[in-house]
Amino acid sequence: RTQIEGQDIPVIADPLVRAYGLQLSPPSLEDLTADAERVQRALAEQHGVHCSSVDVAALRQISPRLRERHWSTQAVLRNGECVAWQSPQAALLGLAVDLGTTKVAGYLIDLSEGRTLASHGLMNPQISYGEDVVTRIGRALESPQEAQRMQALAVEAIAQLSQELTAAAGAQVQDIVDAVVVGNTAMHHLLLRLPVEQLVMAPYVPTVASALDVKARDLDLPFAAGAYVHLLPNIAGYVGADHVAMILGTELWKAAGVVLGLDIGTNTEICLANHGRLSSVSCASGPAFEGAHIKHGMRAAAGAIEQLCWANEHLEYHTVGDVPPVGMCGSGILDALAQLHARGIVDQTGRMLDHPQVRTVNGQREFIIVDRETEAGPAPITLTQHDVRELQLAKGAIRTGITALLLESDLPDEEIDEVIIAGAFGSYIDVSSAIIIGMLPALPVQRFRQVGNAAGTGARLALISKEQRAIAATLDRETARLD
Amino acid sequence: RTQIEGQDIPVIADPLVRAYGLQLSPPSLEDLTADAERVQRALAEQHGVHCSSVDVAALRQISPRLRERHWSTQAVLRNGECVAWQSPQAALLGLAVDLGTTKVAGYLIDLSEGRTLASHGLMNPQISYGEDVVTRIGRALESPQEAQRMQALAVEAIAQLSQELTAAAGAQVQDIVDAVVVGNTAMHHLLLRLPVEQLVMAPYVPTVASALDVKARDLDLPFAAGAYVHLLPNIAGYVGADHVAMILGTELWKAAGVVLGLDIGTNTEICLANHGRLSSVSCASGPAFEGAHIKHGMRAAAGAIEQLCWANEHLEYHTVGDVPPVGMCGSGILDALAQLHARGIVDQTGRMLDHPQVRTVNGQREFIIVDRETEAGPAPITLTQHDVRELQLAKGAIRTGITALLLESDLPDEEIDEVIIAGAFGSYIDVSSAIIIGMLPALPVQRFRQVGNAAGTGARLALISKEQRAIAATLDRETARLD
Repeated sequence: RTQIEGQDIPVIADPLVRAYGLQLSPPSLEDLTADAERVQRALAEQHGVHCSSVDVAALRQISPRLRERHWSTQAVLRNGECVAWQSPQAALLGLAVDLGTTKVAGYLIDLSEGRTLASHGLMNPQISYGEDVVTRIGRALESPQEAQRMQALAVEAIAQLSQELTAAAGAQVQDIVDAVVVGNTAMHHLLLRLPVEQLVMAPYVPTVASALDVKARDLDLPFAAGAYVHLLPNIAGYVGADHVAMILGTELWKAAGVVLGLDIGTNTEICLANHGRLSSVSCASGPAFEGAHIKHGMRAAAGAIEQLCWANEHLEYHTVGDVPPVGMCGSGILDALAQLHARGIVDQTGRMLDHPQVRTVNGQREFIIVDRETEAGPAPITLTQHDVRELQLAKGAIRTGITALLLESDLPDEEIDEVIIAGAFGSYIDVSSAIIIGMLPALPVQRFRQVGNAAGTGARLALISKEQRAIAATLDRETARLD
Repeated sequence: RTQIEGQDIPVIADPLVRAYGLQLSPPSLEDLTADAERVQRALAEQHGVHCSSVDVAALRQISPRLRERHWSTQAVLRNGECVAWQSPQAALLGLAVDLGTTKVAGYLIDLSEGRTLASHGLMNPQISYGEDVVTRIGRALESPQEAQRMQALAVEAIAQLSQELTAAAGAQVQDIVDAVVVGNTAMHHLLLRLPVEQLVMAPYVPTVASALDVKARDLDLPFAAGAYVHLLPNIAGYVGADHVAMILGTELWKAAGVVLGLDIGTNTEICLANHGRLSSVSCASGPAFEGAHIKHGMRAAAGAIEQLCWANEHLEYHTVGDVPPVGMCGSGILDALAQLHARGIVDQTGRMLDHPQVRTVNGQREFIIVDRETEAGPAPITLTQHDVRELQLAKGAIRTGITALLLESDLPDEEIDEVIIAGAFGSYIDVSSAIIIGMLPALPVQRFRQVGNAAGTGARLALISKEQRAIAATLDRETARLD
């Protein structure tokens, strides 16, 4: 159950990178034009296209390539620069990546058609340096070697994704002619090998906020000869390019009325679109919704309880893969708290009260969700008083962010026309449960929309459409930030 | 005696790269602008300069640098791109390189003033792969490893020169913010790691002829973070960027009347400026003038006979460093042939005739230039019949090139207003001797001008002046080529 697909937004494919088929006449004593200039001339004559320069790595390939292939090629151009060559029939491949703190999602796109050929997600291997961004930055600051290794891990994850995606499409990593990567500011900086110290020191400013175009080779990514990686802009130290991608992927930037967009994760970014004006906050919601720091929490793998509801006096559950339960994933944890609160077992302050299914272990109360039938079996699955406190911190951070945005715009909850919930966790939560525990405003459920990985969708839009990329580049300036 | 200085042409320093001193206000809760955008804003506010992007390697340096240096820096800009940072008082350093087949000459320039701070020449280490270009390309084609090694040697030579030049100026290689490299097409291609096979296969076209801007890091040159190396255009497979630099360094491109420019070397490039129209040829004059393939030939080191003339019946000589003779360098060899021809000892066809100082050794005639006094001493220094034949090939190639250019423009020798002789060898030859042996047209000696390393001068001009660089970029199109 790897939610990496976001919704599909219909956008006309108009990529920044394009391929032009060429049939050249070979050089002769009457026509001693150099190879690169011969290609440039043919681009002008056969396609009316001006090619102002050829990337040096693409230059290194052209002479043997033309001679081996009977002077026939496709020149791949980007803003007038020739960045690669490809075979006459080859598809124009682009890569969109959502480099998340926890998960890295990749999409291989046929740029000519704007079609997703393959998508795949894997765990961010930096997780061995800590689950959250602040811990990882702390490790990066311990020594330059640690920082280098962590940076290399981000590159390796993208390289591995590229490898798997291109293999699935019968292509090679070197066939990727353009890429868009989005991530929070820390992931963005680590990938670019930018320093991260200033991100954790007041007043928390990034090295760079604007959109960037960097040669893939300068990031050690083995794409086509002169291919670029485009990075969407960061809005601020903790409101990163992934948030910009979410605004793009949900079309919040052109939302009418009052729309709230949330990308729930270890950090939760929230954007309020108020009649065209955008304001954003980021809040440290922690990893509780990913199952971390919760006694019986786990990721959404087979055996994870993902839904819970009362059937009379009994809490019924549903597990991922319909196999016996081994723990609870984020949506299950959220349901559990909501259901206990709905029945008054957890009060308004978060205190767990007396109940036949509440027991005390080592001085701590816990509610037994799954009681084991056999004494020899594994321990029961429970929600503890400590778990409730963790969840209160997480939902409190999110609710505070929402309230701050609404206050700043002087809007009551009821004026929100739509709440768009993005992110893998956000796709699976029960909105009613989130309302019960006070994480989301108490609006009619039809005003909520769960859209999956909107950051990935935004990255794909920026990859296939010049216009979308240009819109994203302006969002860092047009989005106000609250702290 | 390393002739690397060319003449100084007065040009107003107007380099493509400029440094702007900045004093920034540090970020605060009221001003959370990112570091790069803070620099861009200050450039606009303090200097009215638009900085459209910051190179990724320069981005990697900016955050710690600003914090360590009290938010004071100099931003180094090139065409609106920030490519480096430097300390407030540091000089803006540029490097001009003439990457010759035999010798590599480097000039460290203060770009703000256009002043040469240091210059130095060293042997091209590729010489271990062969003295001439064709031999080296042959070796490069033997295996990709050989080609890579040869390419690395060119880079190492430039890196070593940079090291020595910056050390002499009390600076570091990483302080070099811009560079111009000129060389013949083969040297140009080897430095850029472009394939060279097509240079030795008919119809001999280069991979690229236009001027190029390449990041120094893409050539493995350890200059400033985002520094570029600019390569002047090639005119054709064997009329390279060094020839363009010579045209620039001699101002042939704006010569009035009829002016002939020669850069004499292993390959000799010749350009005819005929009332503003330029035509060029390249001829394989071989290494004889560098002392190679000549029995007692040597480079212009201490003990090399560099001048010869008759004093009555005795050939008097002058050596480099005024020490006892050990051989003859190019200018001495040329003088020797001219003097023997003037006295009829070598006839019009190049045959060596009988003479008291002509002896036969192993069936070959040779003229004794330096007779040893003691029998125990070293062998005498002679000019052999074989040497004469080598020199005939060399001077014949040059004379043929001149004739072809004049014929194509329908000009007799006498119409030549000026002959500019460039190159280290050309600086030391006796023009009368060159006329006697038929290498140069028989014009009054005051029409000849010897200018030293004009290619190096041209590289320096392109480095310190945007205008000169722009002129050079047009010369590949405006110069006709004869073959």
